Amino acid sequence: MSHPEATIPVPDLAHGSINKELLAEAQLGKWGDIRKQARAMAAKPELHKAEGATMAEQRARVFEQLGILVEAQSVHRAFPKQFGGEDNHGGNIAAFEELVIADPSLQIKAGVQWGLFGSAVLHLGTQSHHERWLPGIMSLEIPGAFAMTETGHGSDVASIATTATYDVDAQEFVINTPHRAAWKDYLGNAAIHGKAAVLFAQLITKGVNHGVHAFYIDIRDAEGNFLPGIGGEDDGLKGGLNGIDNGRLHFSNVRIPRDHLLNRYGSVDEDGTYSSPIESPGRRFFTMLGTLVQGRVSLDGAAVTASKMGLAIAITYANQRRQFNASSDTHEEVLMDYQRHQRRLIPRLAQAMAAGFAHEVLLEKFDEVFSGAHDTDEDRQDLETLAAALKPLSTWGALDILQECREACGGSGFLGENRMTSLRADLDVYVTFEGDNNVLLQLVAKRLLSDYAAEFRNLDAGVLARFMVRRAESLVINRSGLRQLGQTVIDSGSEKRSANFLKEERSQRELLTLRVQDMIANVADDMRAAAKLPQAEAAAVFNEHQDDLIAAARSHAELLQWEAFTKAISTIDDKTTRQVMTWLRDVFGLTVIEKNLSWYLMNGHLSMQRARTLTPYINRLLTRLRPHLQDIVDSWGFTDDHLRASIASGAEATRQDQAAEYARKMRASADAPIEEKVLLNRRRAERKASEKGTVKA
Amino acid sequence: MSHPEATIPVPDLAHGSINKELLAEAQLGKWGDIRKQARAMAAKPELHKAEGATMAEQRARVFEQLGILVEAQSVHRAFPKQFGGEDNHGGNIAAFEELVIADPSLQIKAGVQWGLFGSAVLHLGTQSHHERWLPGIMSLEIPGAFAMTETGHGSDVASIATTATYDVDAQEFVINTPHRAAWKDYLGNAAIHGKAAVLFAQLITKGVNHGVHAFYIDIRDAEGNFLPGIGGEDDGLKGGLNGIDNGRLHFSNVRIPRDHLLNRYGSVDEDGTYSSPIESPGRRFFTMLGTLVQGRVSLDGAAVTASKMGLAIAITYANQRRQFNASSDTHEEVLMDYQRHQRRLIPRLAQAMAAGFAHEVLLEKFDEVFSGAHDTDEDRQDLETLAAALKPLSTWGALDILQECREACGGSGFLGENRMTSLRADLDVYVTFEGDNNVLLQLVAKRLLSDYAAEFRNLDAGVLARFMVRRAESLVINRSGLRQLGQTVIDSGSEKRSANFLKEERSQRELLTLRVQDMIANVADDMRAAAKLPQAEAAAVFNEHQDDLIAAARSHAELLQWEAFTKAISTIDDKTTRQVMTWLRDVFGLTVIEKNLSWYLMNGHLSMQRARTLTPYINRLLTRLRPHLQDIVDSWGFTDDHLRASIASGAEATRQDQAAEYARKMRASADAPIEEKVLLNRRRAERKASEKGTVKA
Repeated sequence: MSHPEATIPVPDLAHGSINKELLAEAQLGKWGDIRKQARAMAAKPELHKAEGATMAEQRARVFEQLGILVEAQSVHRAFPKQFGGEDNHGGNIAAFEELVIADPSLQIKAGVQWGLFGSAVLHLGTQSHHERWLPGIMSLEIPGAFAMTETGHGSDVASIATTATYDVDAQEFVINTPHRAAWKDYLGNAAIHGKAAVLFAQLITKGVNHGVHAFYIDIRDAEGNFLPGIGGEDDGLKGGLNGIDNGRLHFSNVRIPRDHLLNRYGSVDEDGTYSSPIESPGRRFFTMLGTLVQGRVSLDGAAVTASKMGLAIAITYANQRRQFNASSDTHEEVLMDYQRHQRRLIPRLAQAMAAGFAHEVLLEKFDEVFSGAHDTDEDRQDLETLAAALKPLSTWGALDILQECREACGGSGFLGENRMTSLRADLDVYVTFEGDNNVLLQLVAKRLLSDYAAEFRNLDAGVLARFMVRRAESLVINRSGLRQLGQTVIDSGSEKRSANFLKEERSQRELLTLRVQDMIANVADDMRAAAKLPQAEAAAVFNEHQDDLIAAARSHAELLQWEAFTKAISTIDDKTTRQVMTWLRDVFGLTVIEKNLSWYLMNGHLSMQRARTLTPYINRLLTRLRPHLQDIVDSWGFTDDHLRASIASGAEATRQDQAAEYARKMRASADAPIEEKVLLNRRRAERKASEKGTVKA
Repeated sequence: MSHPEATIPVPDLAHGSINKELLAEAQLGKWGDIRKQARAMAAKPELHKAEGATMAEQRARVFEQLGILVEAQSVHRAFPKQFGGEDNHGGNIAAFEELVIADPSLQIKAGVQWGLFGSAVLHLGTQSHHERWLPGIMSLEIPGAFAMTETGHGSDVASIATTATYDVDAQEFVINTPHRAAWKDYLGNAAIHGKAAVLFAQLITKGVNHGVHAFYIDIRDAEGNFLPGIGGEDDGLKGGLNGIDNGRLHFSNVRIPRDHLLNRYGSVDEDGTYSSPIESPGRRFFTMLGTLVQGRVSLDGAAVTASKMGLAIAITYANQRRQFNASSDTHEEVLMDYQRHQRRLIPRLAQAMAAGFAHEVLLEKFDEVFSGAHDTDEDRQDLETLAAALKPLSTWGALDILQECREACGGSGFLGENRMTSLRADLDVYVTFEGDNNVLLQLVAKRLLSDYAAEFRNLDAGVLARFMVRRAESLVINRSGLRQLGQTVIDSGSEKRSANFLKEERSQRELLTLRVQDMIANVADDMRAAAKLPQAEAAAVFNEHQDDLIAAARSHAELLQWEAFTKAISTIDDKTTRQVMTWLRDVFGLTVIEKNLSWYLMNGHLSMQRARTLTPYINRLLTRLRPHLQDIVDSWGFTDDHLRASIASGAEATRQDQAAEYARKMRASADAPIEEKVLLNRRRAERKASEKGTVKA
C-alpha cells in the first residue's frame, strides 16, 4: 500500500525498524500460502461488495459470486477428496475467512452453502447422503438453507419445536411446524435461492421424542416455488449482510423419505426402531452440534481480518492527517501524535494482534480435531470451549475497533468511500449469530466451573477442607491488604521498580491468571452451597452470579489471547521486531489489567503504588510504539484493492503536501495578507514604543 | 403502545406502581405541548424513513418531506415574528428533536436548511439580509448549504483556507479555493438541492486577513447547474443519513457583491475599511461560532430520544421473550429476569433518563440566551460549555444504547423491521459532526482548567501557597489510605452501613464532584509548571495530560447529568414514583462511580470495604427496579407509529402465548410423545426395582 509520508518527520527509531516480512510470516500462520491465494482472490473487483446497491441487486450479485468461487475451486478444500475436495479443514477456513475482505455477505453466504448446509450433510450424514447430495451442493446446483434456528428458539436449540414424526406405514417422516414461534427463521438462502435445506427437528418415533436431529429436505421446485406444505417469508432488509436472502420457513405435514434422516448419530429402522452410537441423549445432541463449530472458528478469524482493515485505514490516515497547531505557529500536528489518538488506536491494535495470534491457535486445534489427528471427546470439548471463548472477544472487538477507527477519521470515516461503516454494519450480526456472545461466554464459564469442581472430585474430604482453609486464609491476606503491603515494601516507593514489575511477562501472566481463578473459585464456593437447594432457588443463586461468570469467561479468553501473543513473539527471529511486539503485547496485557484495576485492588493482587504506575507506564509504551505503527499495519499486507478506502490511499498526504506548499509560498510572499491579530500586536507595540518615546522626550 | 404481558407473572410491586402520567410530565419539560404536537407529526407515515430505498430515492423523499414540514408550519418557530416565525428558540428545538422519530435524515436535512443555513443568515446577517433571504429560506424556495467545513479542516474552523478578498474597484468579494484541502466538504444540500450557501472564508481587505467570516452566495442556477467558477462533487453513499445529499464545493474567482457579507459582527466599507463591534479577533470569531450552538443542543436532545426508542423496544421485548428454563421444567425464563440482561439494559435506561433531564436544563439555558432573557458573555460561554459537555455523552450514549439494545434482541434485533440498526447507523455521525466529541470534551476541560485558575487569580501569593500546602497534605492523606481507614472505622465491617453511605445523595454528589476537582487540580498543577516552557514543550506537557483532561470533562458532564436527574426527581409529586426514580438515579450515579472505581481507590476517596459493597448494591437495585421497567419506558409515550418495531408490537407475547398453550396441551395429552431422557430414567428405575425384587425373591 502506498502511504507517502513526505510531510511527516522521520520517526526517531532509536532501536531500528521492525522486520515487516518476518512479522507478516508470524501472522500468516500455518496456512499462509492458502491465505495469500485467498487474498489475491479477494482483491478481484468482481467479488467486491456493491456499496449502495439495493437489497435485490446485492442478493443477485452475491449469488453470482458464489459461482465465481466454485469456478475458481476456492471453496471445496474441506470436502472429501472423493468428491474433488482436499480434506483440508484448517486451510479451508483460512481461505474462507479472507472472503470478508471482498464482501462479508459473500463470506457468510458461502458459509451458509458450504460451511453450514454442506457441512451438515458431510458431518451429520453418511456415505449414501454424501454421494447423493455433496456433488450438487459443491457445484451450487443445490443451493441450500441451514434450517435450525426458529423464531422462538435461537440460543436454546434443544427446545426447537418443529417435529419430524416417523410414519411406519409410509416409511416417511412427517414434518410439522406446530405454531408461529416454531417457524424457522433468519436462514440464509431461505428467502429466494434455497432449493433444499438441512432441517433440524424433534425426531419422534414409536411415541418417543429422541430430540433434535437433522433431515435433508427439498423446499423449492425447479421454478423456485415452494413445494406443497411448505411456506415462508422473506426476513427483508437487515442492518447489514444484505447480499444474503435470509428468510423464514414453515411446514405442514410435509413428508420426506426415511433415508433423508442424516443418520450418523441416530437412525430409524424401517419398523421405526431408533438407534444411536451415542447412548446419552444429551451427549448425542452436543456431539451433533459440535460438528458445526467451524462457523464460530471462521467468524473469529474474519473478525480479526476486518479489525485489521479498520486499523490499517485509520492508522495510515492518522499518520498523514494534521489538525491544530498547539506546538508551532506554522505546522499542524499529525493526528497520531496526540495522546488521545494513541490511546484510542494503539490498545486496539494490540487487541487485534492478540486476537489474530489466538485465532491461529484455535484454527490449528480445529484442524487437529477435524482431520482426525487428535479427535478425542476431550479434544472436541476443548475446541468448542476455545471457540466459545475467542469468538465473542474478536467479534465484539471488531465492532468496537471499526467504530473507533471510523470516529478517529472524523467525518471522512462516515463516508461510504472509506469503507469502515459498511464493514461495521455487516459485521454487526457476528456478535449474536453462530452462538450469541453472552451465551457462549456463559458456556465457557460453566466449563471453567466444572473443571474447577473436577480438580477436587477425587480428593478426600480432609484435603478439600484443608484447601478451603488455605483459600479462606489467602482471601483474608489479600483483602486485608497484607499482600499489597508486601508489594509496597518491595517497591519501596520506586516508580521504576513498580513499572519493572508490570512489564515482567511473569507478572502479567500471574495477574491475568489470578483473576480467572479467583472469580471462578468465588462463584464455585457459592454454587456448592446452592447445590442442595430446590431447582428454582439454585437457579436464582446461579443467576445472581451470571454477570460475574461472564466476566470471568471473558478474562479467561483474554488470558488465552495474551498467551498466544506471547508465544508468537518467541517465534520471531529478529531482535527489534521482538522488542516492539513485546511492547505491544505489554500494552495488550496491561490495558486488560487496567480495565479491571479496581478488582485487582479490592482483591489485594496489586498494591496502590503499582496500580498508580500502571496508566503512566502504558502511556509511555504508546509513545515508544508510535514510530512503528505504520510498519505494523503494513505488515498485514493489505493492498488498495483490499482496503478500498480513499483516505488510506495516500490522497490525504497529497492534500497535506499541497496545503503546506501553499502556506510556505504565502509566508515567503511579500503580497500575502497580514493577520489582523499580528497587525494589532504590531500596532500595540508601536504605540507603546511611541509613548515611551514621548515620555523620554 | 400495546404490550400484552399475558404470560408474564404480575410483578411483585411491594411499593405500588409508579405514576406514569406524572413521570411523563416530568420528562416532557417546559415545551411539553410543542413536543407532543411534534410527536403527532412524527407519527405520520409520509414523514417516515423509507428503509431500504436507494440513496437517490431517499434524497428525493426527504426533500419532499421538507415541503410537508413547511406546509405544516412545523419548522419556523425560531424565526422572527416579522417573517411568520414565533421568536421561540427553545420550543423550536424541542419540536425539531422529535423529527428523529420519523427519520434522522429528515431531522438533519431540516437542521441544515433552517438550523444552520437559515440560522446563519438570521444570527450573522443584519436586517437587510433577513428581508432579502429569510422568506425564501423559510419557504424552501432557496434550499441552501452551510459551507464551513473543508476537507482539510473540520474541528479547527479558524484554519479554513477559502479566501474572500475584497476588490475595492468592483466593490465585490472574490472567493477562492487555494488547494484541494480547502474544498468545502460534507455539506448537506451541496450535492444536489442547494441553490445558495452561507460560505465561511478568510476575509481579506486592504492586505489584512480579518479571519473567518460568513458570506451569502448563490451556487446554482434555476436549472440546478453550478454558477460560473463553482464546482463540486457528491460525497456519495454514507454510513447513514442517506436522505441527505452531502457534497463538496470549490470556488475559482467567484465574485459576490459587497453586501453579501453577513455583517453583524464585521463589516467592510465601500473603500475596503474593516470594522467590527468586537475588537478582539479571537473573541469575535468565537462569538460568531457561538451563534451556531443550537446544532449541538438539538443533537443532544435527538440522541436522548433515539436512545429511549431503542430501550423501549428492547425492554418491551425482554419482558415478553423467553429462553432457557433453568428454574423450571416447564416454563422458560423471561429475558428481563436474567441478571446479565438487567445489567445490560437498566444502567443504560438510567443513563438515558439522566441525559434527558440534563438536556432539558441545556434547552432552557439555550432559550434564555437566545431569547435575550439572560444573554451576557458569561451566559453564552456557560451555554457553550454545557452543550460541549452534554452532546458527547448523549450521542456516544445513543450509539452504545442502540447497539446493546439490538444485541439484547438477538437476531431479531438485526432485522430492519425492528428498526434499531437503522437508527444506529443514522445516529453514528452525531458523535463527530457539529463538533467532534473528543474535541468538544477537550474544550470543556480547558474551560474547567481556566475556571480553576481563575479561582486563584485574585489571591495573593501567600494564600496560594497555603492552599498548595493544604492540597499537598490532602493528597498525602488520601493516598496514604488514612482517609479510607476512616471510612472503614465508621462502617466497622458492616456491609449495610457501606451501602447506606453509597445510597446517600450527599455521598454520590461528593464522590462525583471530587473526581472532577481532583483531576483538574492535578493537571493544573502540572500545567502551571509548564507555563514558562517554550511553546512546543508546553504543548507536549499538555498532550501528556490529554487523555486525563478528556476523562475529567466526561466526569464533569456526568456530574451535570446526575444533578439534573436529582433535581427532576424532586419535582415529581408522587412518593412511589420518586422512590423508583431515586433507585434509578442511584443506579446512574453508582455505575458511573463503579466505572471509575480504581481511581476512587487509588486516590483514597473510597475504602476497600465501601468499594466492595458497590457492585452487589447496584445489583440489588436492579432487581428492585425490574418490576417497574415497563412502566418507565411506557412513560415515554411512544406509539407503534413511533417505534415501528415488530418485536415491540406485542407479536412476541402472542407467539409466546401460542407456544405455551401448545406445550400445555401436549402435557395434558395422552398421545404426546415421551422424551427419550424421561424414558431412559423410567427404564433405569424399573430395572433397579426389578433387580431389587429379584434379590428380595
